Amino acid sequence: MTRVLVGGVTGRMGRAVIAAASDRDDVNIVAGVSRDPPGEIDGVPTESAADLEAALSEYDPDVLVDFSTPDASRTLVAACADADVACVVGTTGFDDDESVFREASESVPVLVASNFSRGVQALLRAVEGAVSDLPGYDVELTETHHNGKRDAPSGTAKTLLDRIAAAGGPDERVHGREGDAPRQPDEIGVHARRAGGIAGEHEVLIANDHEELRLSHRAADRGVFADGALDAAAWVTGRHPGRYEFSEVISE
Amino acid sequence: MTRVLVGGVTGRMGRAVIAAASDRDDVNIVAGVSRDPPGEIDGVPTESAADLEAALSEYDPDVLVDFSTPDASRTLVAACADADVACVVGTTGFDDDESVFREASESVPVLVASNFSRGVQALLRAVEGAVSDLPGYDVELTETHHNGKRDAPSGTAKTLLDRIAAAGGPDERVHGREGDAPRQPDEIGVHARRAGGIAGEHEVLIANDHEELRLSHRAADRGVFADGALDAAAWVTGRHPGRYEFSEVISE
Amino acid sequence: MTRVLVGGVTGRMGRAVIAAASDRDDVNIVAGVSRDPPGEIDGVPTESAADLEAALSEYDPDVLVDFSTPDASRTLVAACADADVACVVGTTGFDDDESVFREASESVPVLVASNFSRGVQALLRAVEGAVSDLPGYDVELTETHHNGKRDAPSGTAKTLLDRIAAAGGPDERVHGREGDAPRQPDEIGVHARRAGGIAGEHEVLIANDHEELRLSHRAADRGVFADGALDAAAWVTGRHPGRYEFSEVISE
Amino acid sequence: MTRVLVGGVTGRMGRAVIAAASDRDDVNIVAGVSRDPPGEIDGVPTESAADLEAALSEYDPDVLVDFSTPDASRTLVAACADADVACVVGTTGFDDDESVFREASESVPVLVASNFSRGVQALLRAVEGAVSDLPGYDVELTETHHNGKRDAPSGTAKTLLDRIAAAGGPDERVHGREGDAPRQPDEIGVHARRAGGIAGEHEVLIANDHEELRLSHRAADRGVFADGALDAAAWVTGRHPGRYEFSEVISE
Repeated sequence: MTRVLVGGVTGRMGRAVIAAASDRDDVNIVAGVSRDPPGEIDGVPTESAADLEAALSEYDPDVLVDFSTPDASRTLVAACADADVACVVGTTGFDDDESVFREASESVPVLVASNFSRGVQALLRAVEGAVSDLPGYDVELTETHHNGKRDAPSGTAKTLLDRIAAAGGPDERVHGREGDAPRQPDEIGVHARRAGGIAGEHEVLIANDHEELRLSHRAADRGVFADGALDAAAWVTGRHPGRYEFSEVISE
Repeated sequence: MTRVLVGGVTGRMGRAVIAAASDRDDVNIVAGVSRDPPGEIDGVPTESAADLEAALSEYDPDVLVDFSTPDASRTLVAACADADVACVVGTTGFDDDESVFREASESVPVLVASNFSRGVQALLRAVEGAVSDLPGYDVELTETHHNGKRDAPSGTAKTLLDRIAAAGGPDERVHGREGDAPRQPDEIGVHARRAGGIAGEHEVLIANDHEELRLSHRAADRGVFADGALDAAAWVTGRHPGRYEFSEVISE
Repeated sequence: MTRVLVGGVTGRMGRAVIAAASDRDDVNIVAGVSRDPPGEIDGVPTESAADLEAALSEYDPDVLVDFSTPDASRTLVAACADADVACVVGTTGFDDDESVFREASESVPVLVASNFSRGVQALLRAVEGAVSDLPGYDVELTETHHNGKRDAPSGTAKTLLDRIAAAGGPDERVHGREGDAPRQPDEIGVHARRAGGIAGEHEVLIANDHEELRLSHRAADRGVFADGALDAAAWVTGRHPGRYEFSEVISE
Repeated sequence: MTRVLVGGVTGRMGRAVIAAASDRDDVNIVAGVSRDPPGEIDGVPTESAADLEAALSEYDPDVLVDFSTPDASRTLVAACADADVACVVGTTGFDDDESVFREASESVPVLVASNFSRGVQALLRAVEGAVSDLPGYDVELTETHHNGKRDAPSGTAKTLLDRIAAAGGPDERVHGREGDAPRQPDEIGVHARRAGGIAGEHEVLIANDHEELRLSHRAADRGVFADGALDAAAWVTGRHPGRYEFSEVISE
């Protein structure tokens, strides 16, 4: 049974990871860390991130599953790499170039993903295909998340934007069109809606003068991401040091 | 038969007004004006807006139906008021305070609307009711139009925003959420999508932690707006000077 | 604190009622009954419906909150009326005329609803208004629920159909259009989609030749219905015998 | 310039083909046939289908583009094959096995398609991929068309159903779920909505307990299908006898 340490354990996703693990027998959440004081969530001890090294030594995890913030995540990953603990990172909002992942991946397996759902992987493939099948069509991206999400657009939206551009779609991102602002051919509008408790929805609109495609994914709850992250944790544990993709996990 | 002069006649909406009139026997398009050189569209003579006064005198219209630009529209409405010609204005992108309409309405009937469809009127009422029924819910507005539309958000979107605020919904408009930008309680995201030939779509999302409403309207083509503007033209002709609303036209 | 007995306690909605009650201090789930053998769910004792009278006497509830099946529900309501226990019934799939509710309402307060969400109430009002504003438009209804739902269409869909007809919309229900089957003017298509774990979605499409409205509601999870049923239970307890509507609960 | 004979010329699609041809210089509509008396549409002579052979001889077309009814289409295709005229057939509502196409394709090129849009081809590929990527997920199909459409479900819907089944998705079609009718694992609900003037919309819903994809296509107007049929007509003219697919036309 894979021993998991949860980063950002007191957040919405951290709690969802604990809940998802209770239905599985391939993973065991040995502890969590967060910026909050020590405590317990559903029987799982939670430690302060300030005492990270003590926690790694006390609970001896195989793998970190982290949904925290970019700053916290960098610290966690560096410490895990030193302690020979594999890393699965679902935190979003990072800058493009993350040297901490490159360095960690020289000593442990590291899997960073903006989204841990099979459905999102299927959406990514469908969008790539459609954009490539329909050259010259306009593309717009709309994502919708709960009103507590800090970063915009979502990590999954950024991945979609990269894939759309790579498939020959428009590449000039426009966040917020207002005033006298007609669309230019290479532009792609990016729309981040924030409302209620919506776990996560992404829609890509592809249109020309006569027709349109709408390709969308919706998560019913955070459980789908938590479960996918635990799939990744079980899969990545014991692998050679290096970088891995979530698409590798689900293609097996 | 009401004699109609079309403003912005060489634009998409101007042409749609000519096409819609050909199926009706209550209105007759006597001429059009635009910034383009004189010509003819489907048998309708089109004059340069530079020769506006000569055109008003030659074609003797009862009513102007205008879908041009704010600048052109101000000039047209002022000249029509002087010539005792009623005004129906569907141009969008005006500033909030339009003294030209107030002044014109002292001598002729003036009807300004951001949208001439019964369906949009029904959407406005449905949105007002739902926002009022669901206090404290988050609200987001998304509008989608063809890639040639200059102004954003649409005039109909602005009307929706006014009604949402008046019904007790959020009032702080956010155009483009990007970066570390969590939603504040009184904010309403406004999203203007521009793609292909989409004639016009407006969606209001109302959500709390457990449920959501989506209320949307879609125009199949510009004909619905052209037809509504001609309904307004026939209705407003012969009325007393003053300001009128499109909702008055369709409630009869 | 209102003492609640849950009918159909081992089903999805029964469990959701127990979960929702744990976050509230105005209601206390004293027991549940179901067709399953006696047991316990999250600390709540669950009895066999065969021992209903003993359960009523042992746990002394103020009000029944029932999400079971039509047959079970009839038995529960009759027994509760005899024992002077108020009834809140969310079970769907009943025939039109339910004499058991009429009889029970002579001795206890009875509230039967196909849906316990504020959002659905708001949708009902929005749909009534739009259908009434747009006479002669075509209307189609689509509902989507999880793949374990037995009855089709949903109780909420039936309520929507009644309201659409009452507002002057089409009244001839068509379940499944196939073959050479063009639409007749008074028909309304009713579409029951069953997929995955979708908690509940209802969409009303209203269209003419030039435009369309789509008015939809989506529940994120069953919690919204469970919470609304508990609101109803707390509200109905202690009232005079008679029939009550959920809209009365939320209008206070 | 390819000489085109239009079958079903007085119908909505027949007229759309004439309109689409007026914007192109690679095709010339030489005449149309229909069950109506002879006449003229936008300058194109229209003959009675009863005088088909005289029409073929008088107008000497290279290719038939047919949007009529199954019965009319069989007669047209057989006569065209005899007269060495290529056939592009967009008529829907045929039975599965159409010997007339097989026989005709021995002497002339024959291209039969349920849909002539690039966007629908892209949707087909996206749906195949997603169904294949998400084994075990539930699938439901909803199509929406104008209230004058005779056959249900649409030809495009049938093509989607074939591709979903071929990709490993559910294969047991359910048209209209009503009463006590829970979903069985291999079922796929098929929903044909008919409302207003909607040119054509197809949506595939793919869901499991935790997430869902919605992949949809919408035609803004019939022009997209008319244009695609004329692309096919120009492409197929002069080819060897045999059967061709629309996907071959757009992959060049």
